[in-house]
Amino acid sequence: MYNAKAYSAASETSPLASTTIPRRDPNEHDVRIEILFCGICHSDLHSVRNEWSATVYPIVPGHEIVGRVTEVGSAVTTYKPGDLAGVGCLVDSDRTCAQCQAGFENFCPNLTLTFGSPDKHLGGVTYGGYSESLVVDERFVLRIPSNLDLATAAPLLCAGITTYSPMRRRGVTKGKKVGVVGLGGLGHMGVKFARAFGAHVVAFTTSPDKTDDALRLGSDEVVLSRDAEQMQKHAGSFDFILDTVSADHDINAYLNLLGVEGNLTLVGAPPKPLGVSAFSLIMGNRSLSGSNIGGIPETQEMLDFCGEHNITADVEVIPIQKVNEAYERLLKSDVKYRFAIDMASLKSE
Amino acid sequence: MYNAKAYSAASETSPLASTTIPRRDPNEHDVRIEILFCGICHSDLHSVRNEWSATVYPIVPGHEIVGRVTEVGSAVTTYKPGDLAGVGCLVDSDRTCAQCQAGFENFCPNLTLTFGSPDKHLGGVTYGGYSESLVVDERFVLRIPSNLDLATAAPLLCAGITTYSPMRRRGVTKGKKVGVVGLGGLGHMGVKFARAFGAHVVAFTTSPDKTDDALRLGSDEVVLSRDAEQMQKHAGSFDFILDTVSADHDINAYLNLLGVEGNLTLVGAPPKPLGVSAFSLIMGNRSLSGSNIGGIPETQEMLDFCGEHNITADVEVIPIQKVNEAYERLLKSDVKYRFAIDMASLKSE
Repeated sequence: MYNAKAYSAASETSPLASTTIPRRDPNEHDVRIEILFCGICHSDLHSVRNEWSATVYPIVPGHEIVGRVTEVGSAVTTYKPGDLAGVGCLVDSDRTCAQCQAGFENFCPNLTLTFGSPDKHLGGVTYGGYSESLVVDERFVLRIPSNLDLATAAPLLCAGITTYSPMRRRGVTKGKKVGVVGLGGLGHMGVKFARAFGAHVVAFTTSPDKTDDALRLGSDEVVLSRDAEQMQKHAGSFDFILDTVSADHDINAYLNLLGVEGNLTLVGAPPKPLGVSAFSLIMGNRSLSGSNIGGIPETQEMLDFCGEHNITADVEVIPIQKVNEAYERLLKSDVKYRFAIDMASLKSE
Repeated sequence: MYNAKAYSAASETSPLASTTIPRRDPNEHDVRIEILFCGICHSDLHSVRNEWSATVYPIVPGHEIVGRVTEVGSAVTTYKPGDLAGVGCLVDSDRTCAQCQAGFENFCPNLTLTFGSPDKHLGGVTYGGYSESLVVDERFVLRIPSNLDLATAAPLLCAGITTYSPMRRRGVTKGKKVGVVGLGGLGHMGVKFARAFGAHVVAFTTSPDKTDDALRLGSDEVVLSRDAEQMQKHAGSFDFILDTVSADHDINAYLNLLGVEGNLTLVGAPPKPLGVSAFSLIMGNRSLSGSNIGGIPETQEMLDFCGEHNITADVEVIPIQKVNEAYERLLKSDVKYRFAIDMASLKSE
């Protein structure tokens, strides 16, 4: 066991502040990673403030982790010191259940989340990426393509896989018409992936001032979702819509834009139930789905795809000392489009 | 043009009553069918009472039609006088759109419903199956397997295809765990099909007194949906759930029973929006769909499947003079499980 510098919150009303946390020494299957950048996901904020009522304090959030391998266990075969490495939302699972066998560790009933899950090695809960290093079994370490900028690659580990996975599973490809609702951390990745898959991409936004950016990110069209006439023009025409909005909104307005057998997938989680009209689904055999990150093989596939197509997030890099301020700005959607913490800033703590 | 005996409603507050309606003489592609039985679908009642605010009066409902061919046009190749024949919800479409080309005439933007759609031949609207005969283009006539009892086969034309189609598309087969919510006209067909497909079938009902019948119809298990403990035992375990309930109900209670990538398909249409928790969908990549009858090829496939497996509806046969009383009983779910009108009773009008 060793101590690592980190930022943690002591309670749901406490700011994140400098601390040290225990990390295990690498066992034979483990990889120790010096964390270079960690993205800020909105679920970090939900967890720090206990908005899902499940937080164990102190909490060290962070699951969009990129860094460099500094040490490997004796049985590790896939990484060596000096390699780039990524860690997403998962650091362990039971490896024996049907989901694990199928590469969907994200649905393992015994998965270990990167932060806030019971820590099988040290007791207490797992600590995430707002830290100078972490130790992870190699099975849960991702390879980061060497051509990607590391700060902008960090958000791929959650925002990337969250948007990539449902589009891949729903067959988003050339010839398909794809909508992306909401242009934030998730939505801007959704536009980039849909474009890279060759689809015709329509971004929906409530903010006219995001139009230029939506086009720059790869949208073919931008629709102002509060303009009923613009919306009506697209009625019944979409193969797939990715809905990244975590605030309450009228889901039927989007369901009605789907064509026959069209699918809308939620990756944002509005706190109140969505009022879904049965007719919106029955007319056209439409479906409304949710999607929750992805398994390890799929996450690696996504990273490799990003390497080939040079896709990363648009980020604003901050020192960790600005993390509480960044949370406030996140609440106002005042970031284009993801914060990434430069973990070198932790050295001065 | 000729006159046919029928039952029609003159306004949303009028009972159905004896009348005569015009029918076209068969053109070269048409088949004239003497109607022997017509099932009563809940949507007949919705339409007669203008509950969807789109009814043109007078209305002759009925789209679960079986009968015998009495005359065919000169170009008709697939039917001859004496053949058994069925007509479902559709009697025409544009035949040129992508949906028609793909055999999904049910999603043609220019489809003609069996009753209540503009009648291209005679003007006014189309008149349905509560009538002694009708004339339909052979492309929209279905073949009824000769081994099926005609009264019990009639509901296959709507209740049958409505439940068969989503299960087929969602891959219900041996090894799958399938739920059927609600044991009425649709639900009892859902249980029969799921059983015939080889799935493990669980019927959900609010009525303990339906348990024996649910087992008789082919369920392997029956769950009382108001018993939270019974429900919890099945959490996360279903591949597919067919929800046939058209009253308000807690959809999340069923979504949470789905396993990873599980699907719940609505074929009933509750009038108020369903309150769908985004988390219910996101956890497990679940989906909520709707399904709306089926195309002509799929309907024929369903009928052929029913012929092979000897599947028909459980019906109570009534004379047409009892149709208004049957509507009242339908509102109280007082039928096991579908009414079929014996159209011979129309001869005395």
